[in-house]
Formats: sequence, C-alpha cells, structure tokens
Amino acid sequence: MFRVAILGYGNIGRAAEEAVKAAPDMELAGVFHHNDCLDCMAADVALVCTPTREVQKFATVLAARGICTVDSFDIHGQIWNLRSAMDAVCKANQAVSVISAGWDPGSDSMVRAILLALAPKGLTYTNFGPGRSMGHTVAAKAIKGVKNALSMTIPLGTGIHRRMVYIELEDGADFKTVESAILADDYFAHDETHVIAVESVDALNNVAHGVNLVRNGVSGETHNQRFEFNMAINNPALTGQMMVSCARAAMRLKERGEFGAKTMIELAPIDLLPGNTESLVKALV
Amino acid sequence: MFRVAILGYGNIGRAAEEAVKAAPDMELAGVFHHNDCLDCMAADVALVCTPTREVQKFATVLAARGICTVDSFDIHGQIWNLRSAMDAVCKANQAVSVISAGWDPGSDSMVRAILLALAPKGLTYTNFGPGRSMGHTVAAKAIKGVKNALSMTIPLGTGIHRRMVYIELEDGADFKTVESAILADDYFAHDETHVIAVESVDALNNVAHGVNLVRNGVSGETHNQRFEFNMAINNPALTGQMMVSCARAAMRLKERGEFGAKTMIELAPIDLLPGNTESLVKALV
Repeated sequence: MFRVAILGYGNIGRAAEEAVKAAPDMELAGVFHHNDCLDCMAADVALVCTPTREVQKFATVLAARGICTVDSFDIHGQIWNLRSAMDAVCKANQAVSVISAGWDPGSDSMVRAILLALAPKGLTYTNFGPGRSMGHTVAAKAIKGVKNALSMTIPLGTGIHRRMVYIELEDGADFKTVESAILADDYFAHDETHVIAVESVDALNNVAHGVNLVRNGVSGETHNQRFEFNMAINNPALTGQMMVSCARAAMRLKERGEFGAKTMIELAPIDLLPGNTESLVKALV
Repeated sequence: MFRVAILGYGNIGRAAEEAVKAAPDMELAGVFHHNDCLDCMAADVALVCTPTREVQKFATVLAARGICTVDSFDIHGQIWNLRSAMDAVCKANQAVSVISAGWDPGSDSMVRAILLALAPKGLTYTNFGPGRSMGHTVAAKAIKGVKNALSMTIPLGTGIHRRMVYIELEDGADFKTVESAILADDYFAHDETHVIAVESVDALNNVAHGVNLVRNGVSGETHNQRFEFNMAINNPALTGQMMVSCARAAMRLKERGEFGAKTMIELAPIDLLPGNTESLVKALV
C-alpha cells in the first residue's frame, strides 16, 4: 500500500479522491488546500489538482522534498518546459514526477505514439468533443469580469475545433471587454471562438466529453492502414482516475531508481496497473 | 544506425524488410533462412519471422550469443512461458528480447492496458476481423493432408469468434480426417470452427484484417465510461512494421542496461519511435 495525497479539491481533486479509494494498492493520505501544500509530505505521492498554471509551483515544492508528484498540466505548448524543470528537481531529490497525466495530454498521447509506431507515415487527427474543456473553462473563468463560464469544444474534423464559451458576467462588467480578453487568451487565440453571455452557466453544465482520434498511414510500403480511437466519457472522472494510475507508475519508477520527470508516452502501460507482471501479462497480452 | 537481420522470409519477413528499409535509423543486415540462423550475428537485432512454434528455438540461440531479438509469437496462453525462458537467457547474456510484438498480441495489448488504467472496473471485448488470421492459417497448413489453407476470423461480438477454414487437400487426403485434425488443434479447439474444402485457396486469399476493441468501464465511482479502438489493416504489413518498431525499443533498453525479455505492455510507447525525447514529447504529448 502506498499513501496518496490530493492537493486541490475541484472537479479533478474530487474524482481523484474516489479513484484513490477504489484502488486496491493505495490509501488516502489526505486532501489538502494548496495553501497547505507541505501537509502532503506525509504521502508517497501527491496528486497536484490545482489549476494548470499553478501546477509547477506546487509540484516543485513537493519534488524538492523528495515527494513524487502527478499533475494534469494541459497547455500542450509548455509541456516540454515543465518536464525539463521538473526533471532537474526530481533527479536532484530522488523523486519522480509524472506530468500532463490525464487523457489529452495523457492516454491520447500514448495512443498517438502507438499509432505512429504502427504506421510511421501518414496523418493523425485528434478531434475533441463535443464536450466541456476543463482547461478552457478554467481559463475563461480567470478572465476579469467573468463570474462563471463554460467552454465547449466542438469538433469540426481534421483536428480543427470551435470553442463555444458561455459566460455569466460580473455585475457591471462590459461584455465586449470580456469577450476581447477571452479571444486574446492563449487558450482561445488559435481557434474559432464564440463568446455568449447567458443568465446561468450552471443550467448548461455537463462534464461529458469525448475524442475521435484517427490515423490513416503507411506500414513499411503498405498504404491505407486505418486506425480510430473513440471515447465518450465523464471528463474529471477520467482525468482523476488516470492521475491515480500514474501515481502508481511514479512509485514503480521510484522503486526502480528511475528518478526524473516523465510524460505518459515515457511510461510502460503495465506500470499504470495494480498487480504483478505475470498476472498482467497473462490477462492483457 | 543499428543493423537489423530478418530470420525467415514469409509474409511477415517480407513486410519487415520493407519496414526496416523505410526506417531512418536502421540498416538491413540481411535476410536469412532459419537454417542460417547464426548469420544473424552480424546484426544488433534479429527479427525472428519464423512460424510461431519455432520462435523460441531460434530466439534462444541468438539471445544466448548476445543478439537482441524480436518475435511475433501469438499463442496467447503460452506467452508467459516464452517470456520466462527468454528473460533468463537474455539476462545471462546482456540481450533484450521483445516477444509477441505485432498487433494482437502487441499494440492491442497496450491499448487494453491503457483502457484498464482509464477505467479499472468493467469489461473489455476484443473482436477480430473479418480477416485472415496468419497464426491460424499457418496452423491449418501444418495439418497432414492440407496442401493450402486460409483461416478467416469472423467476429460474433463480445469477443466470440467463428473460424472459417478453407482448405485445399493433398492428393489422396481424406477430408474427414483432415477436418478432425484441424478441429482438435489448440488454435481451433476453443472456437466455433467450420472447415470447407475448396479448389483454390489462392483465389480467396487477402491479408486484410481488423479489430474492434471495446470497453465500457468505471473510473473511480463514475460508470458508463466508453472506449473503442478500431483498425482496418493489411495484417503482415502491420505485424512486420511493429516488429521493426520493437527492434528500436530493444536497442533502447539494451543501451540503458535493461536486459531481459519484455512484452509490449512493458514498453514505453516513446521507445518504439525514432527521434529524441524532446522532439517526440513536443510532437505527441
């Protein structure tokens, strides 16, 4: 049994708590507000369930004290920088950090890597949704003048998406000013984005999400190799569960002395699962 | 650049040759008949493309001389035994063997492991085909009295399959005797199997295959998490390509001093791919 702490108690923190309690090889060391970050030191692994932009600060504090961490950092363009920074801290303190754990980045990244190994030439398209993007929703909520927000991701095919951002304004906030700030945010600046003021975001809220990941590629000299991966899921439940599975992988790596930071494509799938190698190979291979 | 030898030159050996030639980080050390097994010793890795039941003999000879091997051994119930035997030989001789590389066992095994990490409770069904099973076709061809054979796998849902075995008889062979021998073979004994005599197997032959792998499971306490992985592919091309991708993983493991035998669920997806960690993380995560 290893001890898992949860730092931050939003949608993902709550889902992660359920997943820790359901895991046969873990016990919950506690759920902590990020102000009480150092209380996680009674644990073997801390799940950093804070907003993405605060992940590095807290993960660094913990890893510097030798505590393994798992986060679901989801700004794709900044993942390598986070990995580099955490890798140095972890190696200096004999810790392991699994970064960007979840489904995308996360399990989708693993699937993309496997499809590339199966058919090295060709195109992969990751089509998200329709569904509520947690990262985009948090980003919209952080804009000045926004009282509550919901960002829906709408797949337009070939990896192109529309963002439908539903917002409740703070009293006195100007819609056009808020809309401009959302459209200028790095989360939204690269996609077709529509901002819509509504009376109640809560009335629209639904954490369902999904993906349709397709590749048509070439194996050796053979064209027209077709692959498709689909999910229709509760988003925070899936993210929290995968963070918990990655906590197990972090412990396995630490036990083997493989310190440092890893993204999910750097993990062997078997390390995500409870049980010994023999039983897992017999059940899954 | 590392040097890859191919042992055996059937459907998979030919496909593997194309994949080696297309790989940016490999060169072909030669294609050898299994009688010339020791000629593979000029290579860093040997792809053992012999019939499944001869894999262990040749892989053992090579690993005992420190040559890494990759095979596509596909008798699911005997994979753990092969892994145990090869693991000992490899560890004693500083080699790495990736066993049961391909798509099932292989990439499907990785997908099953990832889905279990995403939703630990629930049911996964692997539905194959319709398509030509290479393992079953080879097994049928090996039956006395069979001149040529084609074994088609027909999915019946929930992981249940029908085997349609088309055979050309040798002159003077008795159909009923041959049929009984096929039905008694371990490859066929567990499924509904129909044996049909035809004039020309060649007229039916087509190496298309596919899979529909589905899971409906529970993440934490959240039910109804739905996943689906589909492929429609040229079977030997995909198998040969994945063996080549696993040759790369074998070299990476050897470079890191991680000697022994591994199934694909024990490999990190990144090790299947050419390129450095930074470029792959940036492209895929």
